[in-house]
Amino acid sequence: MTCLHCEDIEAIKRLKARYFRLMDTKQWDAWRELFTADFRGLYRGPHPDISYASREEFVTSNREILGPLVTVHHGHMPEITLSGPDTATGIWAMYDRVEMPGNRFEGYGHYHDEYRRVDGEWRIAAITLTRLRIAPLGD
Amino acid sequence: MTCLHCEDIEAIKRLKARYFRLMDTKQWDAWRELFTADFRGLYRGPHPDISYASREEFVTSNREILGPLVTVHHGHMPEITLSGPDTATGIWAMYDRVEMPGNRFEGYGHYHDEYRRVDGEWRIAAITLTRLRIAPLGD
Amino acid sequence: MTCLHCEDIEAIKRLKARYFRLMDTKQWDAWRELFTADFRGLYRGPHPDISYASREEFVTSNREILGPLVTVHHGHMPEITLSGPDTATGIWAMYDRVEMPGNRFEGYGHYHDEYRRVDGEWRIAAITLTRLRIAPLGD
Repeated sequence: MTCLHCEDIEAIKRLKARYFRLMDTKQWDAWRELFTADFRGLYRGPHPDISYASREEFVTSNREILGPLVTVHHGHMPEITLSGPDTATGIWAMYDRVEMPGNRFEGYGHYHDEYRRVDGEWRIAAITLTRLRIAPLGD
Repeated sequence: MTCLHCEDIEAIKRLKARYFRLMDTKQWDAWRELFTADFRGLYRGPHPDISYASREEFVTSNREILGPLVTVHHGHMPEITLSGPDTATGIWAMYDRVEMPGNRFEGYGHYHDEYRRVDGEWRIAAITLTRLRIAPLGD
Repeated sequence: MTCLHCEDIEAIKRLKARYFRLMDTKQWDAWRELFTADFRGLYRGPHPDISYASREEFVTSNREILGPLVTVHHGHMPEITLSGPDTATGIWAMYDRVEMPGNRFEGYGHYHDEYRRVDGEWRIAAITLTRLRIAPLGD
């Protein structure tokens, strides 16, 4: 059996792995390269929705807020679908642990991603994050 | 190199991803469609074993107990083995977080699954869940 | 599309899945078989670094320390790279939960692994574990 999309699916899983690892190890310049130039982001509640209108806004915000903190972000159970020769979507279950002074929490939810191949490399074109639960640490 | 079973293995991973996601987002009608008509389930202790003799019993029980709750279920580290052209087994490490009134816990263990292809679609034919640990939340 | 390395990548993921599962279910004789004869290990801080100069030292240490305990170890988000026909590297995000008397913790970090194919079977040739966080349970 050949595997029609396995190579692209594995490449997209590696892209998302780098997204999490470079974020948690604070390699922000390399992290920025994972996104398309027209990236858009949306973090949905329980908190008020947060929109990111550009890659620069998204990268700058994450770098400023998460950069000084110990953070842990894991993705699980990917559902990757090729929607065209150079486009794909993905759903990932997620876990994060963030320890801000006065706001230490564990969270759970799902990423709903769009990916696009640019110059032969898969990139993240859009992220919508939905939440099942945000729980204070120790609760 | 061709990949003998990669497409089926990826399809089974996606099936299990939908199992977790549709459960935690409470899409029970779609969740029911993931199982074969002759599904059997077994949840092994620390609590007394719980047997599910039919798909309907399993779906109804999960819907009634977990439906009103915030739940998180993640699968990790799949070991998928094709045992025939239309049958497979899978082992998954698991994490769950369930917050019932008076019984809030995090749990860890392993799913031991059987899968069968029915009308071209992989389905879950049997689940046996074993537990490493069930810990009260906040402990 | 053929998938150049998908079969080896899946085999290495299964190898690491067995690493975690056989450790947490305390099947130490089978666990030992997952490593090459010249295995080397390094666990980096926050604690002082711990080096393992041989497979026997690594297996004996894990068996003695973790054998009597309930442990949970999960790997996430693999980045597997074939570096030759019979060699590969892998990075995994990790989670562990270890409950020793007087030292109950959850930990987060990354495995940086080397793999080698020996007699047709992929084996773990080296592990370096780096830590993002080790947090006392209940914190």
